[in-house]
Amino acid sequence: MNGLQAHVKIGGGYDILIASGLISKAGQLLKNMYAGRTCAVITDTNVEKLYLSSLLSSLESAGIRAHAYAFQAGESSKNMDTLSDILEFMAKIPLTRTDFAIALGGGVTGDMTGFASGCYMRGIDFVQIPTTYLAAVDSSVGGKTAVNLKSGKNLAGLFYQPKMVLIDTDTLRTLSKEDYASGIAEAVKMGVITDKKLFSLFESGEAFHNEKEVIFLSVFAKAEIVDQDEREGSVRKLLNLGHTYGHAIEKLSDYTIPHGHAVAIGLAMAVRTACRMGDMEKETAEKIINVLKKYGLPTESPFAAEAMADASMNDKKRAGASLSIIVPKEIGKCEIRKIPAEEFIAYIRMGSEEI
Amino acid sequence: MNGLQAHVKIGGGYDILIASGLISKAGQLLKNMYAGRTCAVITDTNVEKLYLSSLLSSLESAGIRAHAYAFQAGESSKNMDTLSDILEFMAKIPLTRTDFAIALGGGVTGDMTGFASGCYMRGIDFVQIPTTYLAAVDSSVGGKTAVNLKSGKNLAGLFYQPKMVLIDTDTLRTLSKEDYASGIAEAVKMGVITDKKLFSLFESGEAFHNEKEVIFLSVFAKAEIVDQDEREGSVRKLLNLGHTYGHAIEKLSDYTIPHGHAVAIGLAMAVRTACRMGDMEKETAEKIINVLKKYGLPTESPFAAEAMADASMNDKKRAGASLSIIVPKEIGKCEIRKIPAEEFIAYIRMGSEEI
Repeated sequence: MNGLQAHVKIGGGYDILIASGLISKAGQLLKNMYAGRTCAVITDTNVEKLYLSSLLSSLESAGIRAHAYAFQAGESSKNMDTLSDILEFMAKIPLTRTDFAIALGGGVTGDMTGFASGCYMRGIDFVQIPTTYLAAVDSSVGGKTAVNLKSGKNLAGLFYQPKMVLIDTDTLRTLSKEDYASGIAEAVKMGVITDKKLFSLFESGEAFHNEKEVIFLSVFAKAEIVDQDEREGSVRKLLNLGHTYGHAIEKLSDYTIPHGHAVAIGLAMAVRTACRMGDMEKETAEKIINVLKKYGLPTESPFAAEAMADASMNDKKRAGASLSIIVPKEIGKCEIRKIPAEEFIAYIRMGSEEI
Repeated sequence: MNGLQAHVKIGGGYDILIASGLISKAGQLLKNMYAGRTCAVITDTNVEKLYLSSLLSSLESAGIRAHAYAFQAGESSKNMDTLSDILEFMAKIPLTRTDFAIALGGGVTGDMTGFASGCYMRGIDFVQIPTTYLAAVDSSVGGKTAVNLKSGKNLAGLFYQPKMVLIDTDTLRTLSKEDYASGIAEAVKMGVITDKKLFSLFESGEAFHNEKEVIFLSVFAKAEIVDQDEREGSVRKLLNLGHTYGHAIEKLSDYTIPHGHAVAIGLAMAVRTACRMGDMEKETAEKIINVLKKYGLPTESPFAAEAMADASMNDKKRAGASLSIIVPKEIGKCEIRKIPAEEFIAYIRMGSEEI
């Protein structure tokens, strides 16, 4: 196979394959593990039209009995009701303990399918087939699953690892410009956290035509981090770079600003704050912000600092009266800093001003 | 404290305390772990009236901020909707990652609170305070949590261990005769599986006045088993003695036959079948059945073998075309036997006939 491959050690260990045309090869790739088993393919009403029939025929021809369920596309479906519907669908097939599920779609599909798989009969196998750039570079790897509650995003979920991740780079061709840029934002963030080489792909412009390498370096870096700290007790917190700002922006926009775009703004704010505090050189900060702009990502928050501080105070990352902030220092080097929650507004203000 | 204590090693390790008056001492007992934290006490509309105020004042006086939520008592509440309500309640308080929940009630309350705690913010601590005999001897220990789906019982859930189990033996005084006997059934089952001494308490009649010892020996035996095999891959399957028959009976009765009573019938059937197959001496079989009768438990299925076989074919314990049956051999000795699913009807028939 003309592709790239990474590996995660936790959760029994699993491979991440990155190549063109993987959806139509899924049956072959899963045959060894699951021939003769039954599978629930969970997808949404958009992705269903694009890739479902290709996946189903590939599975069937490998001797895997597949049943598909498509929920209404969109973040508003990511709730307990849809989770229930997926579980009832699995039970109706019925899947047994030795059967499995496939998440075919973006982050919403992966998050809900992972959660449902983690609790159906107290846990069955599942496979991630991400179809967005953001899911490919980030959310399909690492086992964070969740649904939103009325009180907030991702408040119910599990750490539950997939058994394989199949990233078909052809799916990137059907993304809107906005969705494509969302993936770039998380990959740039990953470059800033851990990997100069990944970051340099964006600087040089190579990222425009070598998505396989971008995805590989992103998931490789993520695998290294989650292998050390699956449950975000320590080093995995680094992956939240820009996310406390970003979550506040998403919330204030009533989720009309997509996650990746909010992360781009959050990353830019974290970088400006770091520059102001003397944690980062101005030149480095400008380099990062310019990369975000180059790939069509926003870098300025449309919301006032006070509103952002209020919105982030309900963020689940707050523990008691202190807040863990990720401070970028150099490309490939960040640190976790615990600050009193009431100081965060000063960070937001610095992040909103020019450097 | 004038009580007994057992310990489970998995899930970080936790103590099980068995004594009179523990509910009003809960605050003291939890103070070291949780003073200054916030707690969601989950209970049902029956137990709420009996024990909630005592628990809340004990918690408050230990510096634990407690918020209570009572769902409509009964197995019919054990579903995804109530799970959602509990999660939304936790989020509204709001509980943070370092806060915790308490399950105050029987098996339904423990199962749902454990499940909700296992997925709220991807897992917060929880404490079991069982108020039924069945929950005390069995379901509060071992970390099996679940809700029912429309297609079947306990189809969605987690293996998620509590941080402490407080068994207040005073709660046994408020149980109906039927609920009391339900607990006996699971404890007799445990005696048959692992412990001659536990079984002898029932034979001698000592069980009538020494519930502390019954509970201690039951949870001690269960702790030993779940420490070896949390996820029911091997030896934990033994705890299902009588349960495949029992689940079919519960289902056919539309859950009007309580779980413990169905288990008693299932145990009697397993014992008669074992006797017929030459796995168990007739004398031993009679001893077990007589103990069940002595404690007011039923030993005969009101349903035809064909109906029971059909009902158990949707049992989630079926894996492919074979079925794991627990065969009792002596008091304290059982074995797991894999049989083709279609042979189960013969087992049911043998279990329905006199020995």
